[in-house]
Amino acid sequence: MLPESWLEPEKNNAPLIPQLTLDCIILGFHNNQLRVLLLRWKNTQEWSLPGGPIRQNESVNAAAQRILQERTGLDDIFLQQFHVFGEVERYSRAEIQEKLKLIFDPELWYERAVSIGYYALVDYSRVNPTPDAYTDECQWWDIREIPFLLFDHNHIIQVALQALRNQLSWQPIGYNLLPHEFTLPELQKLYETILDRKLDPRNFQRKLLGLGILERLPIRRKGGAHKSPYLYRFDKAKYEAGLKEGNLFFI
Amino acid sequence: MLPESWLEPEKNNAPLIPQLTLDCIILGFHNNQLRVLLLRWKNTQEWSLPGGPIRQNESVNAAAQRILQERTGLDDIFLQQFHVFGEVERYSRAEIQEKLKLIFDPELWYERAVSIGYYALVDYSRVNPTPDAYTDECQWWDIREIPFLLFDHNHIIQVALQALRNQLSWQPIGYNLLPHEFTLPELQKLYETILDRKLDPRNFQRKLLGLGILERLPIRRKGGAHKSPYLYRFDKAKYEAGLKEGNLFFI
Repeated sequence: MLPESWLEPEKNNAPLIPQLTLDCIILGFHNNQLRVLLLRWKNTQEWSLPGGPIRQNESVNAAAQRILQERTGLDDIFLQQFHVFGEVERYSRAEIQEKLKLIFDPELWYERAVSIGYYALVDYSRVNPTPDAYTDECQWWDIREIPFLLFDHNHIIQVALQALRNQLSWQPIGYNLLPHEFTLPELQKLYETILDRKLDPRNFQRKLLGLGILERLPIRRKGGAHKSPYLYRFDKAKYEAGLKEGNLFFI
Repeated sequence: MLPESWLEPEKNNAPLIPQLTLDCIILGFHNNQLRVLLLRWKNTQEWSLPGGPIRQNESVNAAAQRILQERTGLDDIFLQQFHVFGEVERYSRAEIQEKLKLIFDPELWYERAVSIGYYALVDYSRVNPTPDAYTDECQWWDIREIPFLLFDHNHIIQVALQALRNQLSWQPIGYNLLPHEFTLPELQKLYETILDRKLDPRNFQRKLLGLGILERLPIRRKGGAHKSPYLYRFDKAKYEAGLKEGNLFFI
């Protein structure tokens, strides 16, 4: 499953919890696309999610923050556990050995690992994608165009998206994925991507503005093809009160 | 944390995943009370949640189903992961050793275990509470009157209740906790208990009936103090469609 010495050698001085790992779905929003950060394994064309093991002396959440910091350069990331992947055989071990045979000895891998899934919502513009010790490249992918991934990582992304859909009304998803200022069409596009369906623009705007959590700025977005829509930002206090009450459900 | 030989000896023939356990919040609704199933440890007055380790040859979900079956006698339980408890030191080990010293050798316990929290929603009337190998008694407790529990189990219950609150509109919580037929005041009481606040009866009934997921039966509940309210049941097809769409939010 995962090499026992997953961490970079110079940092690998704390023992690890055996057979337990985490996987991170790091999401950003850019050019009206929901994007996920993927890693390409050394000397292969094989991609997977960022992840890794948990040290005996760190909490599971701290391990997730550490891995996110290493991959993005950010240390104030909005982060949420969403599911534990605990099947006995999560994927074909033989297939992974074949695909990654040049990289390391399969005998170093646990027969089985349980993985805790986290999603992270980041400000795309602030991320500095950085590969780990086993990978050559760290890159954003449009969520609608991700390739066939190693392990069970395509499945993990699908489960993360379902969690995002379920949590749209009680987690600060828009707040964390969008830049500080945005247009209503941009916010609608984000909702449509997460929900995987089209929304009626007039209904969307009417219901959304009815929540009273957005503040319209006296500025318009320039350079659009047809219109110059107003910029908005979240009224943070009202947004957080709405999330706490759980009454931001409007779609 | 947890004994390596947690399972009953005669069943303990499959190796366990080290340092990983699960805890189950088993909830039932009876006499207008939300109740949770707790275990009393042998020859003590100490209570905790049901739980246990995961075998190398079973999935995490299968382990949860097995533990629930052992404690309740039921094998068709609605079950949901809700959080991973992954702190390095989840509770005072010295305190546990002191409280449970007559029961087993602390050297058999892992220094640290990560616990996966599940909540289970059961039909109260069908449960046959059954202690495990380390406990004398398995009993329902009103969620508002639970005692000080061993380990971090009071905390785990609080986190489970918060998850239930967040998930009221997209998990079949009422459907699984209530008997087949129920009155609107009973359903309101369940919502009030989970949300931990009073709801206006007229608003509650108007909004709830507006969802179109309840079917009124031509029968009234007899024996009430003042009124004889009608019995209702869920229209399962409409309820499931509503859950899938995520549009059962009305509180």
